[in-house]
Amino acid sequence: LSLIKDLGEREIIKLFLKYFVSSNLDLKLLNDDVALVDLFNDETVVLKCDMLVSSTDVPPGMNFKQIGRKAIVSTISDFAAKGVKPLALLISIGLPKNMSKSNLIQLALGLSSGAKEYNVKIVGGDTNEAKELVIDCVGYGLCNKKDIILRGGAKPGDILASTGEFGIVSAGLKMLLEGLKAPKNLKQKLLKPVYMPKAHLKEGLALAKVKAATASIDSSDGLAWSLFELSRMSKVGFIIKNLPIAKEALKFAELNKLNIVDLALYGGEEFNLVLTIKREKWYKALKAVEKVGGKLYFLGEATKNKKIILNLKGRKEEVKPLGWEHFKEKLI
Amino acid sequence: LSLIKDLGEREIIKLFLKYFVSSNLDLKLLNDDVALVDLFNDETVVLKCDMLVSSTDVPPGMNFKQIGRKAIVSTISDFAAKGVKPLALLISIGLPKNMSKSNLIQLALGLSSGAKEYNVKIVGGDTNEAKELVIDCVGYGLCNKKDIILRGGAKPGDILASTGEFGIVSAGLKMLLEGLKAPKNLKQKLLKPVYMPKAHLKEGLALAKVKAATASIDSSDGLAWSLFELSRMSKVGFIIKNLPIAKEALKFAELNKLNIVDLALYGGEEFNLVLTIKREKWYKALKAVEKVGGKLYFLGEATKNKKIILNLKGRKEEVKPLGWEHFKEKLI
Repeated sequence: LSLIKDLGEREIIKLFLKYFVSSNLDLKLLNDDVALVDLFNDETVVLKCDMLVSSTDVPPGMNFKQIGRKAIVSTISDFAAKGVKPLALLISIGLPKNMSKSNLIQLALGLSSGAKEYNVKIVGGDTNEAKELVIDCVGYGLCNKKDIILRGGAKPGDILASTGEFGIVSAGLKMLLEGLKAPKNLKQKLLKPVYMPKAHLKEGLALAKVKAATASIDSSDGLAWSLFELSRMSKVGFIIKNLPIAKEALKFAELNKLNIVDLALYGGEEFNLVLTIKREKWYKALKAVEKVGGKLYFLGEATKNKKIILNLKGRKEEVKPLGWEHFKEKLI
Repeated sequence: LSLIKDLGEREIIKLFLKYFVSSNLDLKLLNDDVALVDLFNDETVVLKCDMLVSSTDVPPGMNFKQIGRKAIVSTISDFAAKGVKPLALLISIGLPKNMSKSNLIQLALGLSSGAKEYNVKIVGGDTNEAKELVIDCVGYGLCNKKDIILRGGAKPGDILASTGEFGIVSAGLKMLLEGLKAPKNLKQKLLKPVYMPKAHLKEGLALAKVKAATASIDSSDGLAWSLFELSRMSKVGFIIKNLPIAKEALKFAELNKLNIVDLALYGGEEFNLVLTIKREKWYKALKAVEKVGGKLYFLGEATKNKKIILNLKGRKEEVKPLGWEHFKEKLI
């Protein structure tokens, strides 16, 4: 008997697509972060649903307020990656019946604070009983079809960039899930983005505004995984010449004798945007992101050769198509 | 310690609303079947999410194809009740990892066939691992704000009507959940709408087109529950002079010595539309529904007195605010 745990996430999605796809659906869009529905002329409705499941998406020690907020952040992050402003949210919730009222209030506060943080209204939802806490956060937005930044638009020669450094969340998760240690002060810094992740919405919107990005995705499944998705959809490869790593992650790797490059590449639950930028727009892109209080890091460039190559001082190799496998198995 | 199972569904929703509501949100709309987001002029985007949870929404014996289809029908039914054509669907799924591939295929087939049945495209979704099967079906549509049929528009004097007979699904669920019996032939007829419910989309769209309905809801939580919702939101009462009951349900009630009126009133999982119709449009409404192959049943009328009164031959009493409590506890 073939079980879905043996299929893997991509096979499951492929199977669904096979049955769902009607003749006039754009398969390329179905593989992207958001769904588009034509409105009129070039205007399109942007829809996204992202399901948070407590047994797989909630790290140990995360409180209910943080869980509610994280459910929102995941959906907002996909809008950020596409450069589209989210206008409204719907929240479908499955609640275990033995949840306490005070935890329910914390959950509601987290959802509400997440929505406020990104200036988007919760306009509806659905409440159900379930065996574990499940939150499906549905986002709605509008954009001009020509402005949306898909996964498939990277061209050889484009600059590969990210809106954040890597490694902190991987380090935090290693502490929570594998019992690795760090001094108190460092520990706090490593756990903060695990419990309070940030969607890089202002960065994504700023880059869309200056029409600098050709492809984009968030790094929620890890940097390596994101690069493979951009590669698969854009039919390009990448050469990574610089890996922006948080100094706290570096310290943690040293203390625990971990390879920092692996920590940065094969992480997950980080919400940096990973983008390709038109070469001639690089400076404009840098300025646009800085203007909204963000940062844009140079990683390397897109190549005609479809491999993803690490070309760092002292480490040259092909990147492996792996995500954070301990925390959230890549199977589903 | 206060647990949410003691709170009840309405209290949970109230709590969420308290935390979610921003100053400029229309509370009346948040209590309706769908969410609306202003588009331009009077055009509005219509969004709805409905979560199917296998431990509470799937009756014994329902196969995976039927489960997938039912997830779609629940969402479509809310569009039907509002008289709005659904244009696209997104499906967020939580899958238990020990589900077999063949069941996954059946599920995909059910989702796909449900979408085809109502002529709506699946444009996106999200796949996750979860402890039990959870399907959140998100619907998207467009309409003119003036045309949408809300729960709160009934006026005293309006005719109370339904697009179907009552009692069959209650009878079917009594067999599946309480072990009640019926001869094979009857049993099949009673179980069919449990496993293969129908959303009354063509009826809802036809009624919206002739602008006949003033308020509407589906009877998925039972007829009595639906009437209490229409009453609460419209600030009217109802007098029920006629209860359209399926002859199979009548037969089942006789065989099992059940009260047929209770069976019809306090059921659930039935997707009839329960509507109020402008008196002067009643004939037009009847014809419009017949024209699309449906039926419209006279139930009674909306009253200024806010009570919901049963006034049938041999049975005059106030209706109780109950739903189908055994199958899907009203707590969540």
